[in-house]
Amino acid sequence: MVERADLSPDRRAFYERISPLHMAPLWETFHDLITKEPATPCVPCLWNYDQVRPHLLEAGSLITAKEAIRRVLVLENPALPGQSRITSSLYAGLQLVLPGEIAPAHRHSQSALRLIIEGAGAYTSVEGERAYMEKGDFIITGAWSWHDHGNDTGDPVVWLDGLDIPIVRLFDASFAENYREDIYPQSKPPGDNAARFGSNMLPVGYESPGRHSPLFRYPYARSREALEAMRDGQDWDPYHGLKMEFTNPVDGGPAMPTISTFIQLLPKGFTSRPYRATDGTVYTVIEGSGTTEIAGQTLSWTANDVFVVPSWLPHHHRAEDDSVLFLFSDRGIQQKLGLWRERKD
Amino acid sequence: MVERADLSPDRRAFYERISPLHMAPLWETFHDLITKEPATPCVPCLWNYDQVRPHLLEAGSLITAKEAIRRVLVLENPALPGQSRITSSLYAGLQLVLPGEIAPAHRHSQSALRLIIEGAGAYTSVEGERAYMEKGDFIITGAWSWHDHGNDTGDPVVWLDGLDIPIVRLFDASFAENYREDIYPQSKPPGDNAARFGSNMLPVGYESPGRHSPLFRYPYARSREALEAMRDGQDWDPYHGLKMEFTNPVDGGPAMPTISTFIQLLPKGFTSRPYRATDGTVYTVIEGSGTTEIAGQTLSWTANDVFVVPSWLPHHHRAEDDSVLFLFSDRGIQQKLGLWRERKD
Amino acid sequence: MVERADLSPDRRAFYERISPLHMAPLWETFHDLITKEPATPCVPCLWNYDQVRPHLLEAGSLITAKEAIRRVLVLENPALPGQSRITSSLYAGLQLVLPGEIAPAHRHSQSALRLIIEGAGAYTSVEGERAYMEKGDFIITGAWSWHDHGNDTGDPVVWLDGLDIPIVRLFDASFAENYREDIYPQSKPPGDNAARFGSNMLPVGYESPGRHSPLFRYPYARSREALEAMRDGQDWDPYHGLKMEFTNPVDGGPAMPTISTFIQLLPKGFTSRPYRATDGTVYTVIEGSGTTEIAGQTLSWTANDVFVVPSWLPHHHRAEDDSVLFLFSDRGIQQKLGLWRERKD
Amino acid sequence: MVERADLSPDRRAFYERISPLHMAPLWETFHDLITKEPATPCVPCLWNYDQVRPHLLEAGSLITAKEAIRRVLVLENPALPGQSRITSSLYAGLQLVLPGEIAPAHRHSQSALRLIIEGAGAYTSVEGERAYMEKGDFIITGAWSWHDHGNDTGDPVVWLDGLDIPIVRLFDASFAENYREDIYPQSKPPGDNAARFGSNMLPVGYESPGRHSPLFRYPYARSREALEAMRDGQDWDPYHGLKMEFTNPVDGGPAMPTISTFIQLLPKGFTSRPYRATDGTVYTVIEGSGTTEIAGQTLSWTANDVFVVPSWLPHHHRAEDDSVLFLFSDRGIQQKLGLWRERKD
Repeated sequence: MVERADLSPDRRAFYERISPLHMAPLWETFHDLITKEPATPCVPCLWNYDQVRPHLLEAGSLITAKEAIRRVLVLENPALPGQSRITSSLYAGLQLVLPGEIAPAHRHSQSALRLIIEGAGAYTSVEGERAYMEKGDFIITGAWSWHDHGNDTGDPVVWLDGLDIPIVRLFDASFAENYREDIYPQSKPPGDNAARFGSNMLPVGYESPGRHSPLFRYPYARSREALEAMRDGQDWDPYHGLKMEFTNPVDGGPAMPTISTFIQLLPKGFTSRPYRATDGTVYTVIEGSGTTEIAGQTLSWTANDVFVVPSWLPHHHRAEDDSVLFLFSDRGIQQKLGLWRERKD
Repeated sequence: MVERADLSPDRRAFYERISPLHMAPLWETFHDLITKEPATPCVPCLWNYDQVRPHLLEAGSLITAKEAIRRVLVLENPALPGQSRITSSLYAGLQLVLPGEIAPAHRHSQSALRLIIEGAGAYTSVEGERAYMEKGDFIITGAWSWHDHGNDTGDPVVWLDGLDIPIVRLFDASFAENYREDIYPQSKPPGDNAARFGSNMLPVGYESPGRHSPLFRYPYARSREALEAMRDGQDWDPYHGLKMEFTNPVDGGPAMPTISTFIQLLPKGFTSRPYRATDGTVYTVIEGSGTTEIAGQTLSWTANDVFVVPSWLPHHHRAEDDSVLFLFSDRGIQQKLGLWRERKD
Repeated sequence: MVERADLSPDRRAFYERISPLHMAPLWETFHDLITKEPATPCVPCLWNYDQVRPHLLEAGSLITAKEAIRRVLVLENPALPGQSRITSSLYAGLQLVLPGEIAPAHRHSQSALRLIIEGAGAYTSVEGERAYMEKGDFIITGAWSWHDHGNDTGDPVVWLDGLDIPIVRLFDASFAENYREDIYPQSKPPGDNAARFGSNMLPVGYESPGRHSPLFRYPYARSREALEAMRDGQDWDPYHGLKMEFTNPVDGGPAMPTISTFIQLLPKGFTSRPYRATDGTVYTVIEGSGTTEIAGQTLSWTANDVFVVPSWLPHHHRAEDDSVLFLFSDRGIQQKLGLWRERKD
Repeated sequence: MVERADLSPDRRAFYERISPLHMAPLWETFHDLITKEPATPCVPCLWNYDQVRPHLLEAGSLITAKEAIRRVLVLENPALPGQSRITSSLYAGLQLVLPGEIAPAHRHSQSALRLIIEGAGAYTSVEGERAYMEKGDFIITGAWSWHDHGNDTGDPVVWLDGLDIPIVRLFDASFAENYREDIYPQSKPPGDNAARFGSNMLPVGYESPGRHSPLFRYPYARSREALEAMRDGQDWDPYHGLKMEFTNPVDGGPAMPTISTFIQLLPKGFTSRPYRATDGTVYTVIEGSGTTEIAGQTLSWTANDVFVVPSWLPHHHRAEDDSVLFLFSDRGIQQKLGLWRERKD
């Protein structure tokens, strides 16, 4: 029901009459529903890894991986507490897997990405193929793919999870299923997907079962090498430095249908020009340090930090060292729907 | 913050420590975020036009079109009061334009459809071309298209509005702009879009400026005639009767990128088999009468009624008379994102 | 073997040595293989219907439809006698079906179009659905579709056939099969394809079995009406007058994958500006009269005439009366392959 | 004119009357134009490199690169002498570039591929970026890209050229232009294209200027490594062994719009099952040895040999050693046009 001090008695009575019929007056809410420019409720925020890490490890002693199913601390946008959202449409969390632990096999309609922050040598298995993960690696567990994780190393492993949970919820399209065993049986040798799909070739007549990339590990070593080779081109975009999008080799589109993923190199001393776009973006600093100014607020970041730049807030970066960042946002969906915009100042 | 009676002190203390850091324990909410099957909050609901119409007309005397901008009674899902949603992702409302009134010209990133319920001869103008609307006509005012409406007839005109407002809001991508005048100047003769785009031809080398159909009026007369002609084929789908999707002639895809639209003929006496799908759907009865049973609840409908079938609820229809219904849902987006599912029992 | 008067003995001997090894020197033919601009062997040509018609009817008495399989006089480009080509890549012919005759059912990988020139009421059957054809109608019998024709009227019927025979031959991809009976059994009522596919709607979930339009009759009445309605727009392209492409409702692309089809209105007194493009084009005059100047040669045409404008020859039209022409070319394939070019002078 | 001994006088006279009108009777040629199955004129053929090489080197002393423009011995299908075709639709030749020579910069609408057979370290430059080529590398000089070659090594370099010359000729769409200098100025460091386009990422918002892959060097080292890694999968297709298609990272489609390219690993002792398809295919043996039986004829091949398997001829391979072959054909175009077929026996 509309609550307004200056509401005339006639209108108030009318609103009370139509409310039980599940109707409401558009004219009272029009300007909230259709705004002149995006008016995201979200605010910028940074999670400093050094500050967050002890809590993550503490969670490790508080609850077992088995009981937790996934031992994750969700990163919530301060403006949306309790909603498990880092931007309006996306979810992010930090997952800890201790030595000897597994995250049991399941699948769900939500798509997930992992960006490895700490530790090397744990694995993610997708439909029976294991990928052993290094720091900075980008991993996809696509929608409805059986997946599980394990850490057979002697050290804790931490990664950032990114999921499209709010999107799937908006469409009321969530499905999930546990595998009958904790570990999905291995059916392909590790590295098969890189050879089969990541070498600028595809098996003749290949038809992808899903809309996500069949290549599910994008090694940091390879991406980092490519960024370094492109440096020579001195081809810096004034707004982005050097920014690449991870692609699905099957169609050249975004690696994941609901989450767009990027890697960005900002060379030491580079300051980007002010920029804004409608895709709220989550940044993970893989290496380097710098600051990002967002609508007047300055976030100082260093390696392993995670920060969020909400939709349509003007921002620019300044790299104090050579910096490499991993980004994810809903840009691809917005573009598919004709909604995406950017503004370069 | 998690509220649970059986929470151990250790965990409660931990949650309190991480909360100010904008973190939350996933394991407390996992099963709410990722459900085994869609768990829409929405419920079925029917708006009986005879019951609703007097209130609509009353709104006509309560507020001018000018003050209202758009004189609309929003149809809200009973489970989501105050949220301007009829399904989780879609908006619907009934708009009244009285004789002599106009709805001033504006444009916005939200896509809109109109389904004419009562009155003939009012117009919708899209980018300077007027379409005069008849009962049952389906009209598109695509994203970012200048549009205005006017009623130069002697009778009130009522239509159903369908918009993707919740979707645009999720992506924080709302833009809107008023035209400098109330009426956008006419630049093309009425009917041009039908000739140019709706005759199974396209201008040579035509490039569509937007992702919506350049054909913006789908006359009921034409659709009805096609349905009648197809009857002879006796090609009834046991789940749907005869169900057609309105298409964009530029690419054969949905007429609108964010809202899928359909017209459905259920012949007299037809009972459909139980069916469910992940796209919550809004039905408008253009002609006929019948019932729809949704998860045990029965809605009785007749011409001009509007009802909603939420995501994943099993339902079937029974036509008492030859019935034609207009449907809209988010099916197309779900399919683009690999999320859509149906189940035929 | 290279034949050239000024060939040195060394080179001649070398060419003779490599010839039995099935090798030849590129440098002798390079400029013939890769030309600075298209150097079509084809020349312009016009077939005047009044002049041609008696011969067509004479063929009617010389051979039965049954013996002929298809009683057609092939229109051959004068520069390519005996090759059954009207342009380098396309085939055209005039087919006569006398009262009471049928053209027996068969199918082949070659795609075919028909443009009705004389007579009304004969039918083309595609996969069991008959379309009764009027003058000016454009009919598709798509690749590998069972098709047959019949004339149950009292008058001869003549149409222009256009096929991609040379294209299929280049790719060595010809397949053909006769149906076990002369007439393919009727399985759908006439007009079903227009209702089901030609009304700006598609059956929900429709998946096209082939790459051609499922709409196989494009009635002249409908196209003519659309052209007339667009006249009001006064939107004449200086090079083309008003030129529309027939589209496949499934994807908005060309109605046929190998042959692009167009209808063009040139108003009385209109003279187009000089134009050239790489797609050699076959024109059929449905109504009107005028001239087309092609690289200095003038063709005078009137209703029912057929003429060909080869690739890359500059040409322009002059309409003496309101004229409507049907065009077909290989433009779509060229565009798919990145080969198509046009030049506007 | 039709020549047939048994032609009736009436018909002969008729044919003579219509011939000057550029018309011909379809019924005399129908079965040649539309065949039950593909009836390629082409025959199988093998070019043994050891046998061919001396002639190639001899060409090196007979004519300078400058005079020749491209010093190439064209491989002609024995059934089509003098036509510069290896299959009906494709061209192939062996090009020799001697130490110190260059092939001057030009561009043309024909697409070209190179498969390096002998020599390492020569370069191909595409639009100002040089790629230094190793044996087995696959290089693309896409349609209308400025390209030139040079050999700054001390040894001759030989590669196989594959072009779509017959296809471009069928469509009368040939354009060509020489650059004003012999060498196109270098504007990007070597290896840029691999970093920018070949690392499963694309520059954000990248729009490809052409329809070919922006990645123009596919190093054999990388492809060979991928094939070897996939061996472990033991995933041998009974018809093809292990066969991969080179893709365009921009859209996942064939690397070149008019020529499909493949790499195939046949392990030692492998015999493939009989197979046929409508795409006539040119094979280059990169390593290994074996035989291919084609419609009863057996070709014995070893490293560096080139052989052709025409359309629709049944064939199977037998590898005597681990063998890797590079293949090109028109499969992609046929698929785009709905013409491609295969048969597995």
